[in-house]
Amino acid sequence: MWTDGRYFLQASQQMDNNWTLMKMGLKETPSQEDWLISVLPENSKVGVDPWIIAADQWKNMSKALTSAGHSLVAVQENLIDAVWADRPERPSTQLRTLGLEYTGLSWQDKITTLRAKMTERKITWFVATALDEIAWLFNLRGSDIEYNPVFFAYAIVGLNTIRLFVDLKRLTDPALRDHLQLDSPSKPELSIQTFPYESVYTELQAICTALGPKDKVWICDKASCALTQVIPKAHRTPIPYTPLCLAKAVKNSTEIQGMRMAHIKDAVALCELFAWLEKEIPKGTVTEISAADKAEELRSQQKDFVGLSFPTISSVGPNGAIIHYRPLPETNRTLTMNEVYLIDSGAQYIDGTTDVTRTMHFGTPSAFEKECFTYVLKGHISVSAAVFPNGTKGHLLDSFARAALWESGLDYLHGTGHGVGCFLNVHEGPCGISYKTFADEPLEAGMIVSDGTDFQITCQFNSYNYRNRGSLTFDPLTLVPIQVKMMSTELLTQKERDWVNEYHRKCREVVGAELERQGRKEALEWLIRETQPIV
Amino acid sequence: MWTDGRYFLQASQQMDNNWTLMKMGLKETPSQEDWLISVLPENSKVGVDPWIIAADQWKNMSKALTSAGHSLVAVQENLIDAVWADRPERPSTQLRTLGLEYTGLSWQDKITTLRAKMTERKITWFVATALDEIAWLFNLRGSDIEYNPVFFAYAIVGLNTIRLFVDLKRLTDPALRDHLQLDSPSKPELSIQTFPYESVYTELQAICTALGPKDKVWICDKASCALTQVIPKAHRTPIPYTPLCLAKAVKNSTEIQGMRMAHIKDAVALCELFAWLEKEIPKGTVTEISAADKAEELRSQQKDFVGLSFPTISSVGPNGAIIHYRPLPETNRTLTMNEVYLIDSGAQYIDGTTDVTRTMHFGTPSAFEKECFTYVLKGHISVSAAVFPNGTKGHLLDSFARAALWESGLDYLHGTGHGVGCFLNVHEGPCGISYKTFADEPLEAGMIVSDGTDFQITCQFNSYNYRNRGSLTFDPLTLVPIQVKMMSTELLTQKERDWVNEYHRKCREVVGAELERQGRKEALEWLIRETQPIV
Repeated sequence: MWTDGRYFLQASQQMDNNWTLMKMGLKETPSQEDWLISVLPENSKVGVDPWIIAADQWKNMSKALTSAGHSLVAVQENLIDAVWADRPERPSTQLRTLGLEYTGLSWQDKITTLRAKMTERKITWFVATALDEIAWLFNLRGSDIEYNPVFFAYAIVGLNTIRLFVDLKRLTDPALRDHLQLDSPSKPELSIQTFPYESVYTELQAICTALGPKDKVWICDKASCALTQVIPKAHRTPIPYTPLCLAKAVKNSTEIQGMRMAHIKDAVALCELFAWLEKEIPKGTVTEISAADKAEELRSQQKDFVGLSFPTISSVGPNGAIIHYRPLPETNRTLTMNEVYLIDSGAQYIDGTTDVTRTMHFGTPSAFEKECFTYVLKGHISVSAAVFPNGTKGHLLDSFARAALWESGLDYLHGTGHGVGCFLNVHEGPCGISYKTFADEPLEAGMIVSDGTDFQITCQFNSYNYRNRGSLTFDPLTLVPIQVKMMSTELLTQKERDWVNEYHRKCREVVGAELERQGRKEALEWLIRETQPIV
Repeated sequence: MWTDGRYFLQASQQMDNNWTLMKMGLKETPSQEDWLISVLPENSKVGVDPWIIAADQWKNMSKALTSAGHSLVAVQENLIDAVWADRPERPSTQLRTLGLEYTGLSWQDKITTLRAKMTERKITWFVATALDEIAWLFNLRGSDIEYNPVFFAYAIVGLNTIRLFVDLKRLTDPALRDHLQLDSPSKPELSIQTFPYESVYTELQAICTALGPKDKVWICDKASCALTQVIPKAHRTPIPYTPLCLAKAVKNSTEIQGMRMAHIKDAVALCELFAWLEKEIPKGTVTEISAADKAEELRSQQKDFVGLSFPTISSVGPNGAIIHYRPLPETNRTLTMNEVYLIDSGAQYIDGTTDVTRTMHFGTPSAFEKECFTYVLKGHISVSAAVFPNGTKGHLLDSFARAALWESGLDYLHGTGHGVGCFLNVHEGPCGISYKTFADEPLEAGMIVSDGTDFQITCQFNSYNYRNRGSLTFDPLTLVPIQVKMMSTELLTQKERDWVNEYHRKCREVVGAELERQGRKEALEWLIRETQPIV
């Protein structure tokens, strides 16, 4: 079982000795390819299901195996499916249409922009396979996959045609048909032809049979190997990030406004939660699970709440060290005055998606706990206060988050930040902040990045403007206080203290007004107390 | 003409309109491959001399051209050679042997370590093509190439044989023959067979003819395409950094000691230069060229001076903005009290190599000059005071150098630091500090990196030791004062002021003692004045 640093601890706890944990990213850990080569007898064949391996992964693995005298083989029948008798149906939940008041851009305009990019690059077809890209393109949302408001679909966009592959039973609602203009398209090139989900394979085959010698087809290199290989190599142009992925990442002003509203509502729920925890924890009745449930209940009271954006990470004491911990009855701990509590949670609202982490102590934190917390805070401030040139890639900011930890010999085994969708997946590309130099795209104004606090990337005006590049910085969307009790304020510089005070002033002003409006008095008192300036 | 950001300014000044400048690294600039594809008629052939193109570059270019219907062709006769009637002979300077007191390690031990790496990786042959690696391996130096104390040679190391390809006339000196044990090898596997330089091609062919089916040959992917292709593909294992490159980068204690001595001597010469400039500039008689000549003269007075390590960059006012500027009679400016002077220079001593940049003003710098200088200084301190985990790659430190500049909308169009050889090339791999994520190898204790000041990477002990990785930091080798007059000290934090004062204390203590010993009174007075603590 190969996994990265985020799951070393969890995997070693949850796997019995039938498994070997392969810690990815450590020098001594072989890649899957290298390990296979080291154990396989000569001229071996390795089988994979081509529908569940990405094209780029197939390519790398196949190349490595071939050069060692083996081969990678696409197995047509999935061996797990063969024994999976009671497999549930593929979900086909109701689709939700999103109007311009949420999306800021019609699907027709998005198609037109996509086609302009295709024309610019001399591309005749684009195959959309990522579910969040398809949801974004058509301004539709579903709930086929827990936490991610997407639906099973494919789309193929030509210069004059649009094919949408989806369970056709979903397309009966008149409002939905109207949204997609299925019955009366405004223009022929904006007419959507609908096909059953499964027919994408044969339909793409048919399109490829009719390709002219210069025709080129765009497909993401993360699409399944099976679908990718339908396109003849001479016509295939695999890309790491599709034009939809890039366009979706840069939020327009309507989306930004929605994200801001979503974060204010989310902060209301969290302030209420923390005020409640403060009261309840001394009674000894709150557990990781009940705290997570309470957080969900409070969020669900907010307008346009749809669901959580990921399973709530509600963890106490040692469980807080398990990066993507999810409390289970057998691991569930009680919140006490003696241990640190970490809650990493978020929600989907129709107007936006949130992802917020806060770490708190309801008694008296130890000196070591405060020291570590403060180094992480210094890193957080260093990244979020950073000003950097337009076009900078996120990985160039990663070390800012670590410098204070490194100085004391500390670190963390995962990246620093990730992109966030707008009422879409809580993790999305193409940007991120990580020491790994994956093919991240440059940061741009309008992108949203989260490191436990969600930020919008905004333009920053400076004294100088070297090479007319312009500068960017981060503007917080999340407005939830950072617990002062956890800080060793003497380790903070004046600049850092000013940053904390200004952040808390904004929390109090913006979220305070909303708490007032909603008449949530206890939470408001808690907010005012937690946002007292530090000196 | 393709060039990177370091040479945009110089190229645009020096090229007439017969040339088009292709600014590498800018979004809009096509690569050589993309440009060729955009202008070539169908089915074109592009010719290159395979002896002067690296194997990895050939591979990339050939792949791109082939996929666009063209081909890359190795041209056997170099067209420039054909018309180059008065081409000088290949230099064949006298070879210098280096004893253990300079190298810390015999060539026999280096061969043994190399063979251990080969055995570990199941490699039967290693072809050494990089001149600095060959010089390092055999503890020899030459002067075939200006500034780089190397000599034209190839070497092929097998598990029991050593072949050295070099102009045989160079091997007549008895001391040299003794050093290489040419006449009485201690062990058969340490017997060096010598061959004429040109015979490497046929000798490698002969070796390859006799390869067993499992035999593998290591060669650097930067070796010439011509030599690389002698090795059949099935037996060829190209590597970005050879074991020699990696071993050479980590200096042993003898080499570190030598580098420290070289830097003290270099600092003596520079203190003397700056004291002299202070006196002479008001007379209006010092030019960029005469200042560079004076620097060389002063360095040449130091013990074991061999030559410069690169052409002195001596530049005044606007010329200071040309990254690798070299003053020519037609560009030569006079040093005045009104312009900033930048000198980036270094020397080869038998015990070590230096590379030092200092920027000064001999009158009163403007507020803008001081502001820019101070941001650069803040970046310099941020990198050099950084503590980071063992195994960190240099590119993760690059943004530390830029943060203060970025904050004001400023930047520089090149990397931040590079490796330095020990009485070898002033630029060497495999480490570096750059925003470009080239395949740099992790930083290790004992490596030497320069960003205008040369540093040794050393172990750092901290309060904590996460995952037992250990930590590293930088320890300065260069001990030349940084001009306080150029600093806006109010922009520095207390920590930064402390760093400057501690650095200057060390300069005064170490270099002061040597100036005293050499009786260089004026330079000593200058040093004491320039190292007064700032408040």
